Amino acid sequence: MSDHVYKKIEITGSSTESSDQAVRNAIAKASTTIKNMDWFEVVESRGEIKSGKVAFWQVTIKLGFRLQD
Amino acid sequence: MSDHVYKKIEITGSSTESSDQAVRNAIAKASTTIKNMDWFEVVESRGEIKSGKVAFWQVTIKLGFRLQD
Amino acid sequence: MSDHVYKKIEITGSSTESSDQAVRNAIAKASTTIKNMDWFEVVESRGEIKSGKVAFWQVTIKLGFRLQD
Amino acid sequence: MSDHVYKKIEITGSSTESSDQAVRNAIAKASTTIKNMDWFEVVESRGEIKSGKVAFWQVTIKLGFRLQD
Amino acid sequence: MSDHVYKKIEITGSSTESSDQAVRNAIAKASTTIKNMDWFEVVESRGEIKSGKVAFWQVTIKLGFRLQD
Amino acid sequence: MSDHVYKKIEITGSSTESSDQAVRNAIAKASTTIKNMDWFEVVESRGEIKSGKVAFWQVTIKLGFRLQD
Amino acid sequence: MSDHVYKKIEITGSSTESSDQAVRNAIAKASTTIKNMDWFEVVESRGEIKSGKVAFWQVTIKLGFRLQD
Amino acid sequence: MSDHVYKKIEITGSSTESSDQAVRNAIAKASTTIKNMDWFEVVESRGEIKSGKVAFWQVTIKLGFRLQD
Amino acid sequence: MSDHVYKKIEITGSSTESSDQAVRNAIAKASTTIKNMDWFEVVESRGEIKSGKVAFWQVTIKLGFRLQD
Amino acid sequence: MSDHVYKKIEITGSSTESSDQAVRNAIAKASTTIKNMDWFEVVESRGEIKSGKVAFWQVTIKLGFRLQD
Amino acid sequence: MSDHVYKKIEITGSSTESSDQAVRNAIAKASTTIKNMDWFEVVESRGEIKSGKVAFWQVTIKLGFRLQD
Amino acid sequence: MSDHVYKKIEITGSSTESSDQAVRNAIAKASTTIKNMDWFEVVESRGEIKSGKVAFWQVTIKLGFRLQD
Repeated sequence: MSDHVYKKIEITGSSTESSDQAVRNAIAKASTTIKNMDWFEVVESRGEIKSGKVAFWQVTIKLGFRLQD
Repeated sequence: MSDHVYKKIEITGSSTESSDQAVRNAIAKASTTIKNMDWFEVVESRGEIKSGKVAFWQVTIKLGFRLQD
Repeated sequence: MSDHVYKKIEITGSSTESSDQAVRNAIAKASTTIKNMDWFEVVESRGEIKSGKVAFWQVTIKLGFRLQD
Repeated sequence: MSDHVYKKIEITGSSTESSDQAVRNAIAKASTTIKNMDWFEVVESRGEIKSGKVAFWQVTIKLGFRLQD
Repeated sequence: MSDHVYKKIEITGSSTESSDQAVRNAIAKASTTIKNMDWFEVVESRGEIKSGKVAFWQVTIKLGFRLQD
Repeated sequence: MSDHVYKKIEITGSSTESSDQAVRNAIAKASTTIKNMDWFEVVESRGEIKSGKVAFWQVTIKLGFRLQD
Repeated sequence: MSDHVYKKIEITGSSTESSDQAVRNAIAKASTTIKNMDWFEVVESRGEIKSGKVAFWQVTIKLGFRLQD
Repeated sequence: MSDHVYKKIEITGSSTESSDQAVRNAIAKASTTIKNMDWFEVVESRGEIKSGKVAFWQVTIKLGFRLQD
Repeated sequence: MSDHVYKKIEITGSSTESSDQAVRNAIAKASTTIKNMDWFEVVESRGEIKSGKVAFWQVTIKLGFRLQD
Repeated sequence: MSDHVYKKIEITGSSTESSDQAVRNAIAKASTTIKNMDWFEVVESRGEIKSGKVAFWQVTIKLGFRLQD
Repeated sequence: MSDHVYKKIEITGSSTESSDQAVRNAIAKASTTIKNMDWFEVVESRGEIKSGKVAFWQVTIKLGFRLQD
Repeated sequence: MSDHVYKKIEITGSSTESSDQAVRNAIAKASTTIKNMDWFEVVESRGEIKSGKVAFWQVTIKLGFRLQD
């Protein structure tokens, strides 16, 4: 990290598969509009239950990216 | 909540009337530019005092909305 | 603070000089695109070390600004 | 509070009306099966948004009640 | 806020009516002895239950006021 | 979520396999006695180490379920 | 801790004697109805004052116990 | 607790004997100037070490007392 | 720290210059009425922005001082 | 856990594969120098992003091990 | 405290007797290898239960000691 | 950050000059025995007061360094 300025946004990804995949889905979605993403921090892990089973893993992350100079 | 990705933003509403109304004002303002708002979470409740009385209730919420697929 | 609605965003400034300067750099950068900035709150102070010395001070702030009426 | 032992449970009430009413609804429901309720502590305030308006206030409380001697 | 110094004290107001009114009661009481009160921050919301109903809303706030120059 | 009242309980699942599986085991066990489970929130992730390897993943979740009307 | 599932409940014990005794009283009371209690975690320590002296120590603990297989 | 207003102050007691005694010492000292003390909440427990032994237990409490009507 | 009892108060200093100076201003002001101040703990760092620049650094500290024996 | 004394250290493992694997890598590395490791607690989950994808999962754990008698 | 640099380590002591004694045991053990210990801070209090009784008090502390100049 | 494993330790630096200098002093001291230091995170800022002035700034940081492969 150099003299740049970074912005952090908070997004929630979901996945029927796993908590890690929920993170990957959130980042994949964000990458369609944000450039220069550098890191993420997990801030909340939860999920939806249906018929006594995990239906969706829902993980909220802070996503850090560098602002254009 | 399904396979979608959500974004959370943080906004502060104010009201001369009540803390609940400060939340409603924040959401009303956000609804003029954001679609698909799904939920909010209260993160801070405070206010301004004038002449020994509450002048403004100020409530900060996180606002969750679904990103376009 | 009056009946307005405010938004808070999270940005990280860096500086080779001091932690206060990292805050000033973050605000200077944000001021190129955001109007009506009113206040900031420090949420994280950290830094990068190189050759046993602080190479960069990195301070994350929440930045509050009034939304246009 | 005397030499008694107390239990705390966590319940979430909802209301279309107000955040206070969500608390009252939670307590009213709990009172149908729990005796000797003594106090509550608010632990989370959130809500559901529909069509750009608060559809439900959802408040989670810890509910303290005395165990039978 | 200018070059002044402020003090924050913690007080708990109670009300049979609502959580907002508990805040107003705390401030009204404080205003009888403190001048230059500027803002408050809610730090705890709880209450007393009697006969399965909320008997008192009890809200603790930090109260900020400017010290005399 | 509608006008219903929900209860949250805290349970810890364990698994030799993965942290996600510890969550699934906790929910599977709870589903044998609780109906109408709606969501979970991860509150603690830890584990037991044996012979320098993870022997058990232990994940504590809050489990939310709707109380019967 | 093996492949079992555990539940955590929150109880508050009180004692005129000491904070440790408040914990012991809470556990003694719980042991009359709960089997397989394994551990506790202190989450809050407070007390009641009468005539300028501690009248009751009140300690809230989370109590973990294994669910029947 | 009725319609009264309460103030909370933060004090640190110390004792060579035990952590509970540090709390008692803090309350005993406060009782020389404050009336109507109702409850305390432990907010920090620490201590000083001398020659590899606990020299002083230092416990910080919030002390709640009713303001005169 | 010996057998004494200490009180902690919360004050906010402000400065146009730096965050450290805001702390010094708060302590300088407090020293006009409080004796035996021993230590401070920073609890919040924030500031006011004007014309896209930091107008005031505002730092809230807890101030610990020994009560007269 | 018996009358022993334990030490907790904080280490961060990384993995290109998954968050669980980052934990396993941290423990594998620690096991080359530390004996009697008993448990771990996850304290932070984050990661590095490259080209819009998770490049490294980085998980920080507290690692508890028994000190030699 | 002067111009020195201090290190804080985290250790968990256990005792069959009391929570204070668990702290003393942790410090006694640490004193066999660490010099210049100055203070401790309690960070977690928990315990093991056997046959419905506290079998071990387990208290985790941060231990601060001065590094050799 | 690559596939490496990192350790974080907690140290407190002090300085008569400024809070930033307290951080630099802590790192300078650590660099005499630790190699490969990569980053720091501020976890506590406090200080000692003498004669109504800041005598020492005391800042506690977590210091992250890469373990030898």
